[in-house]
Amino acid sequence: MNASSDLQATLDASRKSWVESANDPSCDFSIQNLPFGIFSDGLNATRRAGVALGDCIVDLAALESAGLLTVPSSGAGDSVFVRDALNDFIALGRDAWRSVRIQLSKLLSRDNPVLRDDAELRSRALIRQGDAALHLPVQIPGYTDFYSSKEHATNVGSMFRDPKNALLPNWLEIPIGYNGRASSVVVSGTPVRRPNGQLKLPDQERPVFGACRKLDIELETGFIVGRGNALGEPIPCEQAEDHIFGMVLLNDWSARDIQQWEYVPLGPFNSKGFATTISPWIVTLDALEPFRVAQPVQDPQPLDYLRQGGEHGFDISLEVLLKPKGAKEATTISRTNFRHMYWTMAQQLAHHTVSGCNTRVGDLMGSGTISGPTGDSFGSLLELTWNGKNPLQLPDGSTRAFIEDGDELTLAGWCQGDGYRVGFGTCVGEIVPAQR
Amino acid sequence: MNASSDLQATLDASRKSWVESANDPSCDFSIQNLPFGIFSDGLNATRRAGVALGDCIVDLAALESAGLLTVPSSGAGDSVFVRDALNDFIALGRDAWRSVRIQLSKLLSRDNPVLRDDAELRSRALIRQGDAALHLPVQIPGYTDFYSSKEHATNVGSMFRDPKNALLPNWLEIPIGYNGRASSVVVSGTPVRRPNGQLKLPDQERPVFGACRKLDIELETGFIVGRGNALGEPIPCEQAEDHIFGMVLLNDWSARDIQQWEYVPLGPFNSKGFATTISPWIVTLDALEPFRVAQPVQDPQPLDYLRQGGEHGFDISLEVLLKPKGAKEATTISRTNFRHMYWTMAQQLAHHTVSGCNTRVGDLMGSGTISGPTGDSFGSLLELTWNGKNPLQLPDGSTRAFIEDGDELTLAGWCQGDGYRVGFGTCVGEIVPAQR
Repeated sequence: MNASSDLQATLDASRKSWVESANDPSCDFSIQNLPFGIFSDGLNATRRAGVALGDCIVDLAALESAGLLTVPSSGAGDSVFVRDALNDFIALGRDAWRSVRIQLSKLLSRDNPVLRDDAELRSRALIRQGDAALHLPVQIPGYTDFYSSKEHATNVGSMFRDPKNALLPNWLEIPIGYNGRASSVVVSGTPVRRPNGQLKLPDQERPVFGACRKLDIELETGFIVGRGNALGEPIPCEQAEDHIFGMVLLNDWSARDIQQWEYVPLGPFNSKGFATTISPWIVTLDALEPFRVAQPVQDPQPLDYLRQGGEHGFDISLEVLLKPKGAKEATTISRTNFRHMYWTMAQQLAHHTVSGCNTRVGDLMGSGTISGPTGDSFGSLLELTWNGKNPLQLPDGSTRAFIEDGDELTLAGWCQGDGYRVGFGTCVGEIVPAQR
Repeated sequence: MNASSDLQATLDASRKSWVESANDPSCDFSIQNLPFGIFSDGLNATRRAGVALGDCIVDLAALESAGLLTVPSSGAGDSVFVRDALNDFIALGRDAWRSVRIQLSKLLSRDNPVLRDDAELRSRALIRQGDAALHLPVQIPGYTDFYSSKEHATNVGSMFRDPKNALLPNWLEIPIGYNGRASSVVVSGTPVRRPNGQLKLPDQERPVFGACRKLDIELETGFIVGRGNALGEPIPCEQAEDHIFGMVLLNDWSARDIQQWEYVPLGPFNSKGFATTISPWIVTLDALEPFRVAQPVQDPQPLDYLRQGGEHGFDISLEVLLKPKGAKEATTISRTNFRHMYWTMAQQLAHHTVSGCNTRVGDLMGSGTISGPTGDSFGSLLELTWNGKNPLQLPDGSTRAFIEDGDELTLAGWCQGDGYRVGFGTCVGEIVPAQR
């Protein structure tokens, strides 16, 4: 078989693993997925690269040192997998990612005895997810957040401007984006402190300082740049997907009251910079290939530099869950899909670089809030409660206009294959009270 | 003498150096200055830390290996000065910066024979600036740009909104800032390519794609964070200056036509992300101490978290020079002063972190365009030509509404002491034509 058919075989819906938990049709981490992350565990506190499979993590450095995994272009010296972040591995390039994916897919297949029947190595190379700590998977040199859901932009425009002219004139021409704060991107599970800031109350002439009263989520995905571009050398739209390593779930926590007062004219700043949470596993674009769908029709047709042939949407089911403080169960408060996104990831990256702006391996690019067309498919509480006017009714009898202290918010996402899933796991954050 | 009086002695206006060029009253790099940078030279391509003095660079690693310079807290192993960037040195903390400053001040004083009379070591440890290449002095994890000149904000508001209500309601309450693009921060001397992007022409319904027609500078300074803060732990305003390592000149190149079309509602993006130029030498806050002045009166008095006692402005003379393509001489097109800035650096940093946002060593914080009160003291062509309406008349007979290809723009800045200067050198960029 050649590399292309090997790569195709990793996507074979009938492939099963000898890690039986991976074969559960509702498990996010099937053998078709093989997402990359950084973990450590109680026996070994060294941060290192792993791949999620079923309820396990496959320790890539352990496989490499046992001679079962070779990394093209990695050269001599330390393993590229024994790192605090995946950047050095990602920087090796797409051929290296694909080679590792193909080797793992074969090694972990049900009919492959090499690792399956080697109890000693298996005990070292497979770690239970429950025994591991997951860390930020990449060191993020730059974080950009886009605003690419037409439904979201329309909702926000309707609420704060004019329902009849909800979309601003530039929205249908530009994949609008802005620079976010990379330092405060944290991994799922990190508690999120409610921010303090300036609030402009309607009944007072001057702003007051205090804790955010309208704390919100934004349901997003993000993509990780796998190959950068030099300053002054834009990435053409048709080639942009070759520069993407993979995707994560992203919660763009937002302090709506701080945002409303601060954002004119230079955009959101403190209202977003206190935390952004991403899921720990990066699902490769290769694993998402079977779920490619057409993006929405773009009318007017974009300017030349944003045009691309083929299909560039992805059918990714997305959910938001809220677990109120003290509650046992979380409630699903939104269900939507990434396929609704108007601007594609390739268009975002082409636009970002068309000025000559350079990108670097590990750069994170958020999609913008992903809202669907119906009221139960909106990606923020701002939209779900229409700026607090229609609070959510929760099963425990409480209501929510915005997030309260102690609430735990979870994003979940997966692609549904025939009898298997390619999933993202979850992106979780619990709100702790503001500093006093 | 104790450390405090040693530190005071570095600022003694009567101190002279045996590097005679440093004693020229118009030289930016007096012995009172001692700014830090990263350089390499023809004989040694290794990037390493240096200090500017007169027309020379003092090679800190050479002095350290000769036993003439010790770095507190630097531990064993490689010299902290043999690095691509100053971050590891800066991370050692203010006591280390001050110790190195004090040792250098003594070693380079006219009456100190140790290095002065050691011709062999001197030939290794002093490099002519003309023989060296200067590099970006820090690796920049995050770049934030503020908007803290009241005159600039008023000018922009008058031009694009309402001259009678030029300042937006939040401007007098918030040191407005936004996240910039760190990847495209380049060192002085790097050519700057004119960006392409979307332009909305008044006579056409849809935007067109093309080269920026309104390319501009923004005369700014920037400060470099010397000590970060943890996520969720704001920096109090009164302590904020302790977190600042030093300052540079900063040119926030701006594509006004791209900006005008793209910036609503999330702020400038492609119009700023193609390049930001900084000067190569970081002038420490310690060296700027004699030039501390009161900031402008702030009315209304800021909210508590932005209040600070004492004086937090700095008397830094600033100039912009334009050398048209093919011309022999540059023309000074603006003269202003950093002391006009309404919001202080300490207030900027306190505001940035009050939400809990973390900062890191090496973070760059731009001041925002520095405009003075008079028409010849504005910090951008946008203001100097009033959006192109009143083009500049240049000595070669040409005019400039905005920057043309081949133009070289230079920022210069210095503090004027009694018979000496603490200067920044220059921040230079020549515009090369857009990619076709």
